[in-house]
Amino acid sequence: MVYEFERILSIQSHVVFGYVGGKAAVFPLQLLGYDVDVVNTVNFSNHSGYGRSGGSKTTAEELNAMFEIMENNELLVPTRLLTGYIPGSEALRAVEKLAIKLKHTRPSMIYLLDPVMGDAGRLYVAPDVVPVYREMLPLATIITPNWYEAELLSQVELKDMASLRRALSILHQQYHVPNVVISSIPLTPWLVNALPKAIRPENFDSSKYLLCISSSTSAQALSHTHLLAHSPENGAAMSTVHAQCVPLIPGYFSGVGDLFSALLLGHFHPTDTPDNLNATTLSSAVSQALTKTHAVLLLTQGQAQNLPEEERLPTDDELDKSIPLRKTRRARGRELALVRGQDLIRGHGITHVREMMLWEGFWNSGGEIEDSTQ
Amino acid sequence: MVYEFERILSIQSHVVFGYVGGKAAVFPLQLLGYDVDVVNTVNFSNHSGYGRSGGSKTTAEELNAMFEIMENNELLVPTRLLTGYIPGSEALRAVEKLAIKLKHTRPSMIYLLDPVMGDAGRLYVAPDVVPVYREMLPLATIITPNWYEAELLSQVELKDMASLRRALSILHQQYHVPNVVISSIPLTPWLVNALPKAIRPENFDSSKYLLCISSSTSAQALSHTHLLAHSPENGAAMSTVHAQCVPLIPGYFSGVGDLFSALLLGHFHPTDTPDNLNATTLSSAVSQALTKTHAVLLLTQGQAQNLPEEERLPTDDELDKSIPLRKTRRARGRELALVRGQDLIRGHGITHVREMMLWEGFWNSGGEIEDSTQ
Repeated sequence: MVYEFERILSIQSHVVFGYVGGKAAVFPLQLLGYDVDVVNTVNFSNHSGYGRSGGSKTTAEELNAMFEIMENNELLVPTRLLTGYIPGSEALRAVEKLAIKLKHTRPSMIYLLDPVMGDAGRLYVAPDVVPVYREMLPLATIITPNWYEAELLSQVELKDMASLRRALSILHQQYHVPNVVISSIPLTPWLVNALPKAIRPENFDSSKYLLCISSSTSAQALSHTHLLAHSPENGAAMSTVHAQCVPLIPGYFSGVGDLFSALLLGHFHPTDTPDNLNATTLSSAVSQALTKTHAVLLLTQGQAQNLPEEERLPTDDELDKSIPLRKTRRARGRELALVRGQDLIRGHGITHVREMMLWEGFWNSGGEIEDSTQ
Repeated sequence: MVYEFERILSIQSHVVFGYVGGKAAVFPLQLLGYDVDVVNTVNFSNHSGYGRSGGSKTTAEELNAMFEIMENNELLVPTRLLTGYIPGSEALRAVEKLAIKLKHTRPSMIYLLDPVMGDAGRLYVAPDVVPVYREMLPLATIITPNWYEAELLSQVELKDMASLRRALSILHQQYHVPNVVISSIPLTPWLVNALPKAIRPENFDSSKYLLCISSSTSAQALSHTHLLAHSPENGAAMSTVHAQCVPLIPGYFSGVGDLFSALLLGHFHPTDTPDNLNATTLSSAVSQALTKTHAVLLLTQGQAQNLPEEERLPTDDELDKSIPLRKTRRARGRELALVRGQDLIRGHGITHVREMMLWEGFWNSGGEIEDSTQ
């Protein structure tokens, strides 16, 4: 018997130096045993965190021409699709067309769509990219928006539990996305108040953590919820929600989301045996991805702290403006330690997996827990 | 103490599907522990062996712009440089300019120049690329031409031992290349006749082997030759020559040279301790590269033999013309098993290293051994 290796088509940015986009995703997926077909949506010198970067964007025409030749050569044969940074709407339309074709040919294809659009209120793609991503959502198996991108996609401002539930409902029901994962969420007071005790660490200082939420509407996940969640007061649960608080590592590291999404896709292994009520397909994959991403970040931080002082100075926007190399040196010192950390990605030396915990009662309106003001 | 990882700047082709150019080189180098900066000289759908391929070439202007920004961002900091397929002379000039700058900044930088120009009498770059490569030779630490490229660079037709010696002399003396490695040489009768017994396998059938030759003029290598080579009759040896016969694996596999060059660079570890007469710096690296490349090829061949019959048919140019997909399926079935073979590249499961053997008396004129007609 030939063990058939899986093949992932990855469509995202390329940088010469450092680890974002494809450079953060492809090597980890190869380490996990996937053959990866690599489409570069841009070819840049380095990520934008250095202040200066240059290179070229791949046009929609170039993408379409490559996809067409690959189709004619019978090379469009991925079992999984991963899309990330695609800066223009025309190029994104080319990717949408391809995703529709691939899904049509192989309905079981797993598509992780990372709707890379911006962060913390700032858009870093053309604005007309946003509606195209909304159109593409029904094609996705998993999406991994950050907080701001979840707002852009759902058109709901996330300011309390009711709006968070509404946004997830829209993504699941209106856009038919079965699996939504939002990582790196700042723990605002309303979110802290709503967190079940089981999910909050002991002696919780919310400023030292970020939250990761996963929400799955798979039939399996829902039947599992039914077993675990005690009689939800407001009808059937929309999805099974898991969450986990991840210790915040100070400083800005680029490519973390790209690494996380790649690891999530790499560890996502749905089963279709009918007797297996595997609610944890998504949450297990998220647990693995969070654990390994965190381990690589710790290694990166340790590396950054061994650099000369000028390369590990904290952010200081005013000083950065007068001495631009401060910023670039800091960015260089914080490039993900993917090569050095390759054994961690293979799972060696990982002694503790950060398990996603079931968020019981997430869909109960109200949902804020009374004794959680600490 | 921080162990300083080495950083390789790799400049060669990129293909979406399959393993040639950077796709054959970067992953192995990452597995060996190198951070790799990746410049894509072209972005193509697949290698040319599929008959059809498409995409774009990176212009000299785009390369220069990226290099300039990287310089301003202090990101041009490789300890090693690897260059491969660069299809146009203007782009190659941009790379030449960069190599001169890098060598000037860090004279100890190791530069493996793979002068990818053609094979078996067929040129697959613009003809004006050839003189630019000749100009660049003095910058290189190691070059890895194939037989045809060695002829193009030296302007010597290789037809007997005298012309082979003349070509190597020109590369070493006129172009100041300290290390020349020519792999995959067909064993023509004159070459077989000249081979010392120690290098020929038992029961030698020359049609089932290819020859690999390495030639090093490093001071260390030469003093070692002096110890080992017994009184060369025609003055001092020009270089230390090693060779090995590698079993030929039938069928055409793309990217093998790119993988070999990457592994050679990855395993090349010069020492400068004065008491270490390490003549084997080059030949050891070649031995490792040949061994691992051969192991990956065997795995690839095994994989190809498990494919459906139509995808493993031998080459048949007439039939290929009438049924173009025959050719593409065969090419797809022969893509290097790099991901599956990653443990081999890490050196796991390699029980026997194919050692390069000293070619004693290589520089003696004549040099053909009398009793070697079998």
